[in-house]
Amino acid sequence: MQIQKAFVTKAERLTPALFEFETLPTAAVEAIADEQAFQGWRMKKTDDYENVLHRSFGKGESVTLDFGDHLVGYVSFAVEAVGSPPDAPLKLKLVFGEMPCEIGENFADYDGWLSSAWLQEETIFIDVLPAVVRLPRRYCFRYLKATVVDASRKYKARFTDFRCRTVTSADVSNVPPLPDGVPEDLAAMDRVAIKTLRDCMQTVYEDGPKRDRRLWIGDLRLQAQANYATFRDRDVVKRCLYLFGGMPLESGAVGACVFEKPQPHVDDTWLYDYSLFFAATLYDYYEATGDKETLEELWPVALRQLRLGAERLDERGVVKDDPSWWCFIDWQGDLNKQASAQAVLIYCLKRGRALAEAAGDAEAAAWIEGETNRAAEAALAHLWDAERGVFVSGDAAQVSWASQVWMTLAGVLEAPEASALFDRLHANPPAIGMNTPYMFHHYVEALFACGQAERAWEELRAYWGEMLRDGADTFWELYNPKDKRFSPYGSNLINSYCHAWSCTPTYFIRKYWKPAA
Amino acid sequence: MQIQKAFVTKAERLTPALFEFETLPTAAVEAIADEQAFQGWRMKKTDDYENVLHRSFGKGESVTLDFGDHLVGYVSFAVEAVGSPPDAPLKLKLVFGEMPCEIGENFADYDGWLSSAWLQEETIFIDVLPAVVRLPRRYCFRYLKATVVDASRKYKARFTDFRCRTVTSADVSNVPPLPDGVPEDLAAMDRVAIKTLRDCMQTVYEDGPKRDRRLWIGDLRLQAQANYATFRDRDVVKRCLYLFGGMPLESGAVGACVFEKPQPHVDDTWLYDYSLFFAATLYDYYEATGDKETLEELWPVALRQLRLGAERLDERGVVKDDPSWWCFIDWQGDLNKQASAQAVLIYCLKRGRALAEAAGDAEAAAWIEGETNRAAEAALAHLWDAERGVFVSGDAAQVSWASQVWMTLAGVLEAPEASALFDRLHANPPAIGMNTPYMFHHYVEALFACGQAERAWEELRAYWGEMLRDGADTFWELYNPKDKRFSPYGSNLINSYCHAWSCTPTYFIRKYWKPAA
Repeated sequence: MQIQKAFVTKAERLTPALFEFETLPTAAVEAIADEQAFQGWRMKKTDDYENVLHRSFGKGESVTLDFGDHLVGYVSFAVEAVGSPPDAPLKLKLVFGEMPCEIGENFADYDGWLSSAWLQEETIFIDVLPAVVRLPRRYCFRYLKATVVDASRKYKARFTDFRCRTVTSADVSNVPPLPDGVPEDLAAMDRVAIKTLRDCMQTVYEDGPKRDRRLWIGDLRLQAQANYATFRDRDVVKRCLYLFGGMPLESGAVGACVFEKPQPHVDDTWLYDYSLFFAATLYDYYEATGDKETLEELWPVALRQLRLGAERLDERGVVKDDPSWWCFIDWQGDLNKQASAQAVLIYCLKRGRALAEAAGDAEAAAWIEGETNRAAEAALAHLWDAERGVFVSGDAAQVSWASQVWMTLAGVLEAPEASALFDRLHANPPAIGMNTPYMFHHYVEALFACGQAERAWEELRAYWGEMLRDGADTFWELYNPKDKRFSPYGSNLINSYCHAWSCTPTYFIRKYWKPAA
Repeated sequence: MQIQKAFVTKAERLTPALFEFETLPTAAVEAIADEQAFQGWRMKKTDDYENVLHRSFGKGESVTLDFGDHLVGYVSFAVEAVGSPPDAPLKLKLVFGEMPCEIGENFADYDGWLSSAWLQEETIFIDVLPAVVRLPRRYCFRYLKATVVDASRKYKARFTDFRCRTVTSADVSNVPPLPDGVPEDLAAMDRVAIKTLRDCMQTVYEDGPKRDRRLWIGDLRLQAQANYATFRDRDVVKRCLYLFGGMPLESGAVGACVFEKPQPHVDDTWLYDYSLFFAATLYDYYEATGDKETLEELWPVALRQLRLGAERLDERGVVKDDPSWWCFIDWQGDLNKQASAQAVLIYCLKRGRALAEAAGDAEAAAWIEGETNRAAEAALAHLWDAERGVFVSGDAAQVSWASQVWMTLAGVLEAPEASALFDRLHANPPAIGMNTPYMFHHYVEALFACGQAERAWEELRAYWGEMLRDGADTFWELYNPKDKRFSPYGSNLINSYCHAWSCTPTYFIRKYWKPAA
């Protein structure tokens, strides 16, 4: 399928200007190894920031600065020589960390399978002192460790200023106040969720401003939902939809992610669920904005995703399984994705039906209705284990949380039946659990959907609340309360600790919280 | 003594524009450990440069490019991704080497006492590909090793261009041709000497463009002498004289070196001989240019150096010795500097006398004559060992090459006596040898001065000629043919391999070569 240049041009015209704020460090700290602390590290204040500016640092000496909160932006600093006129360049190493582990551990020991180039560090040489250094790259951090790798025997270095110019496309003045009476723990969760979303909102909705710094549709869908309840941006969501819509893969499927630079281009990653979510994201956008022009322009793209999704149904109406990485659902290597994928298809078809009607496409609406029914009936006929009262997935009839969650969100069971299903799951939990806030989001959403609001709030507090207790300034990409060093990448150093798909507590609180809750 | 702003302003106005030339790599090479090669390393060609541009480099892969000659300038390169759209930054390590050892050995193992920040390397992250990267720092190199520290599993890096924009203030079109009949080995030496001078001629006469990248008066004096015979610059020499003259140390002594940036400032290093050389350098400048205005403005500075130098004479008329680093002469830790310093004083007083006359300062001329005689007589009375027929230095009456060389240059002995002295030295060489081309320069100059031209050419060929045989593209800061890894800094990695004080073969060849030589 061809690139639709008009769509990409429209997307580029919607590139937002960024809001900028200046932030200074608040203290000097030290990373302390502590098995009781999250991931084995905690920060200890060692000095006031102001005092750092009076110290001088010789070869091998370092200071770690705490900027007091998670930041995304551009760092500058000033440095001068103390002693004789500087007779050699100043060699500095800078390490940026969202979390204490990034400061406490040694990046050289990283051995994960994602590129080590994501680890935020710089080694720079300053030929002339005093100097004001404006680092050209954007960093995502709370902590900055500066080490004088070498100066010379004749001088040391004194830092006279550090600052960060943070950037976001989120308009913080747009966020409505929380309703009166929201309990403090949920209000705190709301604040951190909003900060997470804000730090990910750049010229697109990034998944994580540390990594991968780009637009994934799975993240976009949840970010947009949280955004409608908070920053109320519409132009950047629209820009993202046009980027995806304008640059499909060869097959016509929407790609899983796109890059903005040097010019917009789509990644070669395809994921079954992510392509389908184009329709769901367009549906949410239209619900939030009523922007019919965009709906009408992008409807053919959404319909194409639904048709491609439905093509995967076999003669029974069941999505064909695949041993490869064909459908995301969760970072859960043991999870069979078939039942979840079936449910995502149904979920998106239902939203596509509403879009077809809004677009006046009766023929598509009829086709969608037929496919929805076929897939839903097949789910009950072939993926529902009536004896055990659970959905099963794949040849091995695997029982997972994900399958039940997605079938509930797809409305394959009526709410009371789904509620009973969750009661059974809680009595007898599936072995295949959940690893990401992304999956937990859908779980909590499913609980609200089947009327288990009380349990939903409990789970929200147990999961995101535990992240807060573990010190989150922004919510994380990956979190397993039972395995806090969990990383699908081989090292928690490379995990993203400000990750879009984790920002949805604000969505839940603002959508579902009632004084009685 | 106060900074003379008018002198500094005059110096700044004389800042030259630089000539620029573009140079591309000529081949891919590999550093091969080889005990027969200079310092244990030789380069082996592995591929044509053009073929490098068709290769792609994954994690840990590298290429070393040979630019075919020693360069000083600014490097840029172009790089693109091969494979999937690049899904992580590209992390590159670049190492620049004047010599094979810098590529073959690991900078991390460097353990010398000069700052490791002089070792030329960069670790850079490229967030967007394809990219054209223009490195902002100036490098001094022939070899560039580029290593892909990390890309990602989805892409590799392909370099599509490398180039260096070289810079110099030397006007190569000004160099007169060598006289007919200069033998090829001397012509080759002349070419490399001129290249050395050219690469050191920047906005000042730098000592070495790799290290220290600044103006030392000891280097300036020899560079200027070589320059008058080749590039015939006068403005940059003049600029350097005004920088030294305008920014003396507290005592009024001219500093050993000055820095240009961020604004001109003098280093706090004082060296007895280097301060005195201000007078000698001004003398050479006036001889070469006849620029009387500059002579008259800077004469008081020169006279001040002579007065300070003479103040160090004790009641006998002998320069007071000092165990600290008070006088340079050579990078020779065992050398006692007293006799050499005495001779440098006499050498500079004699040139000062000519300046005083040119400046019409009869009073100073008379004073200088008195001091010259006093110091020369004291040298013969107290530093000449008549029995052994050598000059001795310090309490231990040390016999070194340096003492004999400088006493000869100072004219303390008549030429026939000096010639006989060198004959004795060659029959019975002093234990304290010479380590630098700077000291060898003065040795060769002394041989010419006492009429031993034949031996002078032999020594030139033995020393600088051996550097050529060892692969010099430009002449080196340090060279001991008997200890080729010699470094006063604890590691030959940090030696400068293009060093101003080594450029004088062109001066000797153009001044002394005659068809009969």
